[in-house]
Amino acid sequence: MRDEYRADLLQVNRLLVSMADAVRSAMSRATKALLNADQSEAEEVVARDAEVDALYRLVEDKVYDLCARQAPVASDLRVVLTALHLAADLERMGDLADHVAKTALRRLPELAVPAPLTATFEQMGAVADRIAGKISRTISELDVVAAGQLDRDDDEMDRLHTSLFETMFGPDWTESTQAAVDTALLGRFYERYADHAVNAGRHVVFLVTGEAFDTAHA
Amino acid sequence: MRDEYRADLLQVNRLLVSMADAVRSAMSRATKALLNADQSEAEEVVARDAEVDALYRLVEDKVYDLCARQAPVASDLRVVLTALHLAADLERMGDLADHVAKTALRRLPELAVPAPLTATFEQMGAVADRIAGKISRTISELDVVAAGQLDRDDDEMDRLHTSLFETMFGPDWTESTQAAVDTALLGRFYERYADHAVNAGRHVVFLVTGEAFDTAHA
Repeated sequence: MRDEYRADLLQVNRLLVSMADAVRSAMSRATKALLNADQSEAEEVVARDAEVDALYRLVEDKVYDLCARQAPVASDLRVVLTALHLAADLERMGDLADHVAKTALRRLPELAVPAPLTATFEQMGAVADRIAGKISRTISELDVVAAGQLDRDDDEMDRLHTSLFETMFGPDWTESTQAAVDTALLGRFYERYADHAVNAGRHVVFLVTGEAFDTAHA
Repeated sequence: MRDEYRADLLQVNRLLVSMADAVRSAMSRATKALLNADQSEAEEVVARDAEVDALYRLVEDKVYDLCARQAPVASDLRVVLTALHLAADLERMGDLADHVAKTALRRLPELAVPAPLTATFEQMGAVADRIAGKISRTISELDVVAAGQLDRDDDEMDRLHTSLFETMFGPDWTESTQAAVDTALLGRFYERYADHAVNAGRHVVFLVTGEAFDTAHA
């Protein structure tokens, strides 16, 4: 029974790693599509979001199945159900990458990001990629150290996010209303991606160690 | 055992009704605060978000406890775990009301909403209130008819959301970049509030009837 439970949990873990890798790749490609006004790359991200959603449903089914067959008790149950929270955060990260890609598509053949902010969005993309990589590594290698660094990455994302507004509300801003609106929404998509990643990190640590982990004190 | 299970589920339902009422009131007050630049109302919304978060944790605890003691099987388990999804959507609706209130606070003593869009945000607030009211009624009275109307309300919210961009990108728009940015983000908060409500509605129907309910065909 215990062995079967562990094998089931391992299967759930594998699905979660696939999800983490998929949403990492999605945001990385979405950023490329955004900064290069690359239609085929953007369309690829949008098309692949369905795969993330399908993985999410597989995790749900597997967890329900596991609960029904193994009837895990208190602490095991919490660990198992944490997989659902984690999957929900990853699924949402995929949606946000999809939103970035759709914003890029909406402005084609123009670039959605105004020139003065290209570097900032490049950096936001890099932070998003680093964060998603840590989530994947934490789940696949049961390495909770990486998860402990997520708050620092999130702080960096918040700084970049704030700097968008400083630029837009500063004296040198001469871009259109549409550019301001796109920037505000894109900024939020990257910031939310990082927020969900931090949440995901907390869930991963709990899933791996069975202990709540406050990344704020890591 | 079966009676105990039903009693437990009823308790979870009561907590969910409290959550739904709380996030309905939060968005209603946040809209008032936004349209009247009312500091005390906005601060009240921000302060009370902690209550919604506390209710969410109570639902989680109650569900874990129920699963551990009753070990519900396949279909019962799905119904019980649906309460977690529903609570997560409601918690997020509370966050979005909090974001609206904080946007109002950030622009005080000025109004965050530019004059040409006051009426639109009034309507978005009204739709949000109607939607949240239906969620609450569906959970408390086990009335799935109201949940079936949520897609129509969501369509109305989407139309209002789209009209914000039409106004901002139209020829008569003379507002500041800051007003455009605030409008874009506020629009998104109301639209996401409605999206989560539609999700919540689907979960409620499943919780109440044990059957998946596609509101798109209602």
